Amino acid sequence: MSLLVVGTVAFDAIETPFGKTDKIIGGAATYISLAASYFTKDISLVSVVGDDFPKESIEMMKKHGVDTAGLQIRQGEKSFFWSGRYHADMNSRDTLATELNVLATFDPVVPESQRECDFLMLGNLMPVVQRKVLEQLKKRPKLIVLDTMNFWMDTAWDELMKTLAMVDVLTINDAEARQLSGEYSLVKAAQKILGMGPKVLIIKKGEHGALLFNKEQVFFAPALPLEDVFDPTGAGDSFAGGFVGYLAETKDISFDNMKRAIIFGSAMASFCVEKFGVERLVGLTQEQVDERVQEFVDLVQFDISLV
Amino acid sequence: MSLLVVGTVAFDAIETPFGKTDKIIGGAATYISLAASYFTKDISLVSVVGDDFPKESIEMMKKHGVDTAGLQIRQGEKSFFWSGRYHADMNSRDTLATELNVLATFDPVVPESQRECDFLMLGNLMPVVQRKVLEQLKKRPKLIVLDTMNFWMDTAWDELMKTLAMVDVLTINDAEARQLSGEYSLVKAAQKILGMGPKVLIIKKGEHGALLFNKEQVFFAPALPLEDVFDPTGAGDSFAGGFVGYLAETKDISFDNMKRAIIFGSAMASFCVEKFGVERLVGLTQEQVDERVQEFVDLVQFDISLV
Repeated sequence: MSLLVVGTVAFDAIETPFGKTDKIIGGAATYISLAASYFTKDISLVSVVGDDFPKESIEMMKKHGVDTAGLQIRQGEKSFFWSGRYHADMNSRDTLATELNVLATFDPVVPESQRECDFLMLGNLMPVVQRKVLEQLKKRPKLIVLDTMNFWMDTAWDELMKTLAMVDVLTINDAEARQLSGEYSLVKAAQKILGMGPKVLIIKKGEHGALLFNKEQVFFAPALPLEDVFDPTGAGDSFAGGFVGYLAETKDISFDNMKRAIIFGSAMASFCVEKFGVERLVGLTQEQVDERVQEFVDLVQFDISLV
Repeated sequence: MSLLVVGTVAFDAIETPFGKTDKIIGGAATYISLAASYFTKDISLVSVVGDDFPKESIEMMKKHGVDTAGLQIRQGEKSFFWSGRYHADMNSRDTLATELNVLATFDPVVPESQRECDFLMLGNLMPVVQRKVLEQLKKRPKLIVLDTMNFWMDTAWDELMKTLAMVDVLTINDAEARQLSGEYSLVKAAQKILGMGPKVLIIKKGEHGALLFNKEQVFFAPALPLEDVFDPTGAGDSFAGGFVGYLAETKDISFDNMKRAIIFGSAMASFCVEKFGVERLVGLTQEQVDERVQEFVDLVQFDISLV
């Protein structure tokens, strides 16, 4: 089924204990689209870049089956740019620079052909911009997945609440779940957040995996233990992309299928962190993806027969 | 098969954000024995207490099937005492008091009848004391499991290395695995530690679950997401007790059976943290244990068929 991805397409400059990059391509919607492309082919992108964004990178996304008709290219303007440095533990980072550029005035326009999309993934953006996308749709998608971050909880709480009330699945990290709910226990946090609108909540815990909640059930997917996490940038977006891409392809939004989708999302995140930026997400083979998912199966599956 | 448990039997005084206790019974061997008692009945204890240790608590352990012939009761002396205060996150704590008392001169004596035990669990103690137990055995047990802590890495490195070289399974937490190996990546840490003697390593990550490694394989067991962790004291020992108790009962030390054993261990740890001290580990029913294990199955099991 058709998947519409909305979010940033941007430049990043990244420093980790393993090295540093010049400006490389990044942005939530880039990671989401590439990760989703391993599962479903009917993907469209709504975003904005300046005329500094490399045409080859847009071509690369098209080769991954991503329809870029909704990608605005603003002449004479610059793309969104973020620069950050990760600490030794790879769980915390300092932002060195944030240049909004074209993002400051981003007004998303969903192409006519995408206004009846079946699945919608709203990557992290101002909550009011995320809502502008929802308002352009002709029918409610089968599933709306939203990502957001602590910054909007600090600066745009009321707008965030309005947007949250309109979505089906929310993905945030553990610190954000605690901030959003005011509860330290993630179990209690989940129940509060599920009262804000979303029917399903995914709490991302980085190297400690991810939790999937609805009002009655909980499922846990681990992160793959890796020798080295080379660059965590985009891991959460790759996770979301694998998750929603798998759901769009299988057309099944049951909790049981979401369990599978989270494993596929975790597999995409595990690829993402192995190299800088999107490098590892470009040109994977189906066999590589399947092998990686099998590693997750081996990692957690056990056989207990209770009497 | 017979299981010999060696470790502290002691008093604790605990403060958590939920409340505080007077002196209550604790000690690694107490938690290990109680947790193991839900899986196997042939358990013996080697430890030491003063004459201040309550007879009812020793009777309680006997009722759980624990043979206390190897528990030395030193007249006119006091039992080991530890007091600590947990921080709001429940992952860190301050030690308020440590009174070694009888532990300062503990010389373990394994009763003649236990010197051919099949399974041996060495709870956290001075590495040289752990080795004294090994030296009294008439034959090598089928499996030796060792727990230790950062304190011995700081103060008794050479002794710890000698003891490590003699055991089959080591259980430590993630910070200790990093300290022992000098590696931040737990995957790299595990491979280094498996070069020190143990054939199997369990890295306990508290609320983030546990990893089981041998040289070729890795398995992950989550912790159960709980509304509240009331008191984490003894969780690692309850985990170890469930693990080794299950292995002793099933007589199978394959990696696949260790996967199951880790789930049973995690279930016992999840009970332990629900109340102060050993309170929750006393008098559980088989049905309660089975229900809890089923929660772990529901938490992580998924069904993916790869083409």
